[in-house]
Amino acid sequence: MVNNMTLNELIVKIVLVLRDSKRKEFRAIIDELQPYDVASLFKELPEKHRARFLSFLNIDDITNMIGELEHEFQIAALKKVGREKTVHIMNKMDNDDLASLFEEMDSELKYQFLSNLEKEELQAVQQLMNYPPETAGRIMTNRFVWIPEHYSVKDAVDKLKSLAEIAESINYLYVINDKKQLVGVLSYRDLILGDPEEKVKDLMFTRVIATEALQDQEEVARLIERYNFLAIPVVEENHVLVGIVTVDDIIDVVIQEADEDYEKFAASGKAIDFDTKAYIAAYRRLPWLILLLFIGLISGSILNFFESTLQQVVALTFFMPMIAGMTGNTGTQSLAVVIRGLSKEDLNKKVISKLIFRELKVGLMIGAVCALLITGIAVIWQGELLLGFVVGLSLLLTLIIGTMAGTIVPIVLQYMNVDPAIASGPLITTLNDILSLLIYFGIATAFITKLM
Amino acid sequence: MVNNMTLNELIVKIVLVLRDSKRKEFRAIIDELQPYDVASLFKELPEKHRARFLSFLNIDDITNMIGELEHEFQIAALKKVGREKTVHIMNKMDNDDLASLFEEMDSELKYQFLSNLEKEELQAVQQLMNYPPETAGRIMTNRFVWIPEHYSVKDAVDKLKSLAEIAESINYLYVINDKKQLVGVLSYRDLILGDPEEKVKDLMFTRVIATEALQDQEEVARLIERYNFLAIPVVEENHVLVGIVTVDDIIDVVIQEADEDYEKFAASGKAIDFDTKAYIAAYRRLPWLILLLFIGLISGSILNFFESTLQQVVALTFFMPMIAGMTGNTGTQSLAVVIRGLSKEDLNKKVISKLIFRELKVGLMIGAVCALLITGIAVIWQGELLLGFVVGLSLLLTLIIGTMAGTIVPIVLQYMNVDPAIASGPLITTLNDILSLLIYFGIATAFITKLM
Repeated sequence: MVNNMTLNELIVKIVLVLRDSKRKEFRAIIDELQPYDVASLFKELPEKHRARFLSFLNIDDITNMIGELEHEFQIAALKKVGREKTVHIMNKMDNDDLASLFEEMDSELKYQFLSNLEKEELQAVQQLMNYPPETAGRIMTNRFVWIPEHYSVKDAVDKLKSLAEIAESINYLYVINDKKQLVGVLSYRDLILGDPEEKVKDLMFTRVIATEALQDQEEVARLIERYNFLAIPVVEENHVLVGIVTVDDIIDVVIQEADEDYEKFAASGKAIDFDTKAYIAAYRRLPWLILLLFIGLISGSILNFFESTLQQVVALTFFMPMIAGMTGNTGTQSLAVVIRGLSKEDLNKKVISKLIFRELKVGLMIGAVCALLITGIAVIWQGELLLGFVVGLSLLLTLIIGTMAGTIVPIVLQYMNVDPAIASGPLITTLNDILSLLIYFGIATAFITKLM
Repeated sequence: MVNNMTLNELIVKIVLVLRDSKRKEFRAIIDELQPYDVASLFKELPEKHRARFLSFLNIDDITNMIGELEHEFQIAALKKVGREKTVHIMNKMDNDDLASLFEEMDSELKYQFLSNLEKEELQAVQQLMNYPPETAGRIMTNRFVWIPEHYSVKDAVDKLKSLAEIAESINYLYVINDKKQLVGVLSYRDLILGDPEEKVKDLMFTRVIATEALQDQEEVARLIERYNFLAIPVVEENHVLVGIVTVDDIIDVVIQEADEDYEKFAASGKAIDFDTKAYIAAYRRLPWLILLLFIGLISGSILNFFESTLQQVVALTFFMPMIAGMTGNTGTQSLAVVIRGLSKEDLNKKVISKLIFRELKVGLMIGAVCALLITGIAVIWQGELLLGFVVGLSLLLTLIIGTMAGTIVPIVLQYMNVDPAIASGPLITTLNDILSLLIYFGIATAFITKLM
């Protein structure tokens, strides 16, 4: 029944049930929902009903729901349930979620919450927070099942039974030796198909692909994507197993990285979504705009420099915005292809030179087509063959150079170990503005006596 | 050992092993590699060694490797192994991989390959190909394990044992009734923890979240991401179970959709990567460029229209490229935020009006900051208070309007059921060029007598 209800219908239903204290009906509804849905409900529920809503949920419900909430709502929920329940919930939460929550808190609140944790859990969270952001160590979880290599299948199943709660969403057992080093992996399927007396050591897969705790999360995502893993073990340098990264966290990483690429490409500022406050959005966007404002003034001084050319052949003005714009556009197109490609492919000289050569050919082709087109337009419109020739030649050259700028700038940045994505569309467009004006007026000035 | 070798070292090693026909050593190397690595090897191996390489691999190796290859290499490999092996390989391949391969083939080749399939497999593939591209039906696989609801845990384990190969990468058993309708799901963990005599019916989870075969793949990705599933069952309208979509396919979908967003945003043309041929890349990029070329000419006619203003106050020229550029930049920034947001959030009037109001405030703030800055620069540089005022006021207005254009255009497109991502950065930049010139020269003309 619940499955066919919209979120709004569900909210109305829940408010009624809460008002009438129908606990049984409340439970029936919650049991049909996934944690994400409970979290959506919590967020959309009017503020005054939230405390009662939380009091009707049990610890497990709240723990699962919290995993799906944004930080501000997590803190709001934890503050509402009171200290005693918070202790239970935090000790049940995934430690990667906890670490990421603590990061957002001011230090007083953090101290207050940290004191709720059991010693073991506290250590696990602190260990995680010691790794730099966006590394495997930071997104790994300690909720996985490990077994010593001397176990039998039956021992393993028993351990799994005792850890049933943790074992829910993962499908591998990790095998370690007495130095806690990762030596093998066993899938649940192996347990099902194996003989109870069989030794884990004989059954396990020993060529485990693991990732180091300091590995960049993007690299971890690439491993999981390539190998179609559901989880990947994380080891320290000495091969000691410290956690696992699961595929659901990796999907979030992939989305987050794509968002970041997008933000940088559009120079739109870090982490601005529909809920970001206006002054924060403005503050994050302004640095780029101010930089581009100054670069934009250079184009103006080029115009000033060629003032006499412009005043002698006024028709040149007519094609100026088009040429500048087109150079920016072709640069943006190349840039997008290069940036997106750089995030996926490994760079080597062969790939680079092939790419640059390809883009050069692309620049030539689109340059030739657009130049022919604009020459025709210029000749028909302005009735001036030479003007057509100047405009056409300029467009050909600016499109080739614009394409090359969009290709080479990010590659050079990559070689200098600067994130190539800081070469944004607006930056390339502004740079190409300058290049195109120089070329256009340079050519026009060369032909000036004949154009007049 | 192999794990520490680079791909190039591995290739050298393999070539030597192949030359000396050391089958045992070859096998030892291959056993340490994942399918993705074998596929990389195959692609990088010099052409003349590939046939021998394939002949040293067994059917399972090749099947797994083929799943990781691009279509052109899949076809090349299948052509090389000969008809008999191809039959075996194709019947073992995932049917979603097969369907996607057939799509790329010309009809003669397709017919020849299709005739290799066993009847059952052929039907499965044809069923898949009947669904539209980018739907759940098209990316689902039929390699999953289903059991009737009257089974016991022991029956289920036995079935799993008989299907060990298929069962490898998935971790659920799907339970169907006698009408083949999906009624429940059971995880491998439930099998391990359950009593052998227990009925599946009593153990299974009945509130299964499934997706319809015609559902958009992006929507399926969102479900899996929200609910942290490893796989989701796909049903027909009558709730008959027809396949499952696994999380590894979803990661590919997420990456593909992000790529598509990126391509549209940069108007860089569909599916251009480092390997795309130059003429294809040029052909895919040209339509946008030609459209933008014509729109760019409009800016030129605006300049022509205001020719007398320009000639009377030459200093106006100096700030023109900056104002046009900045309007494009702020529009691109807003556009990126809106497009990326639209792909994630559900639209309603409340969200939209909040967003537009937020961006209006952002436009005001960045407009005010940049306007003050440029007024100061203009006054100091050109020593002309009124010119500073005209430039500052123009920038304030163009930044507000540019921000609004970047916000409203994609929203309007979305309402008209046009993909908002066709409003690309270059398009908004070109449109904002026109708007900014109109505003700038409009204001300047109004003050012209005082500016002179």
